[in-house]
Amino acid sequence: MAQEIERKFLINKKEWQNVEKSQGNLYRQGYLLTDPNKTIRVRQTTEKAFLTIKGLSIGATRPEYEYEIPMEDAKELLDNFSVSELSKIRYEIVYENKIWEVDEFLGDNTGLIVAEIELESEDETFNIPSWIDVEVTGEDKYYNSNLTIEPYKNWRNK
Amino acid sequence: MAQEIERKFLINKKEWQNVEKSQGNLYRQGYLLTDPNKTIRVRQTTEKAFLTIKGLSIGATRPEYEYEIPMEDAKELLDNFSVSELSKIRYEIVYENKIWEVDEFLGDNTGLIVAEIELESEDETFNIPSWIDVEVTGEDKYYNSNLTIEPYKNWRNK
Repeated sequence: MAQEIERKFLINKKEWQNVEKSQGNLYRQGYLLTDPNKTIRVRQTTEKAFLTIKGLSIGATRPEYEYEIPMEDAKELLDNFSVSELSKIRYEIVYENKIWEVDEFLGDNTGLIVAEIELESEDETFNIPSWIDVEVTGEDKYYNSNLTIEPYKNWRNK
Repeated sequence: MAQEIERKFLINKKEWQNVEKSQGNLYRQGYLLTDPNKTIRVRQTTEKAFLTIKGLSIGATRPEYEYEIPMEDAKELLDNFSVSELSKIRYEIVYENKIWEVDEFLGDNTGLIVAEIELESEDETFNIPSWIDVEVTGEDKYYNSNLTIEPYKNWRNK
């Protein structure tokens, strides 16, 4: 089965400011469906767009089916079919041969920065950069789909 | 906007029996989402599979976004993610340069046979074969997504 294995971390904002990074990529993404068992997402980046179906996470593993779609379709689907939406700037940082994807959320999620690393297996080991803080893998409230419903600005204990 | 313009008809079963046709193609299709405003469908045929998002119909016109996906993905999505499903045998009949798609439904929809013709515009004219009966374009109960919820066998006035 198609799946992604991914671990997710908060970052140390002070350390993060000093990390050398190239320009980020603006992501606009919306959900055609969000329920506890599956999400259907349309994501538009500067150059490409994708339709993605994700299933239920077990540990760091989640079924994922992703298809590239035309940019124009993505815009129409986001404008006309999505029930909730968010934007973020994504940075890709290479650290000891692994790619960390760091998302600085915008809008109602401004202030939240989350780093993800994709793995080949649940038990793959990797080195952790100094700007990584606590792990939040599997914590529902950090799911992007949930951030469209209960955004960071509404959280009581940030 | 991507869209399909389609008119739908019931058929005269007696006449239909006498129509010369090549072997039909078995379609298995399931819905990841069915609501009045949009449906998300996975369709698996003998050789190909598709993920399709359809919007609200206005007249014979409906927004439609269709993407071919791997057969294996389609099977997994149908097995694990669809909320309702149906099967049918599709025949394609060429009549006076237009293609008629005729669906003989199976399972709980056995007995229902529906013919569709895709048009370039709402006002395109076309010739109607003798085996076509009344038009049902826009009648909700004939939407395939609705047939998975309220199948033909439950209809009081067939």
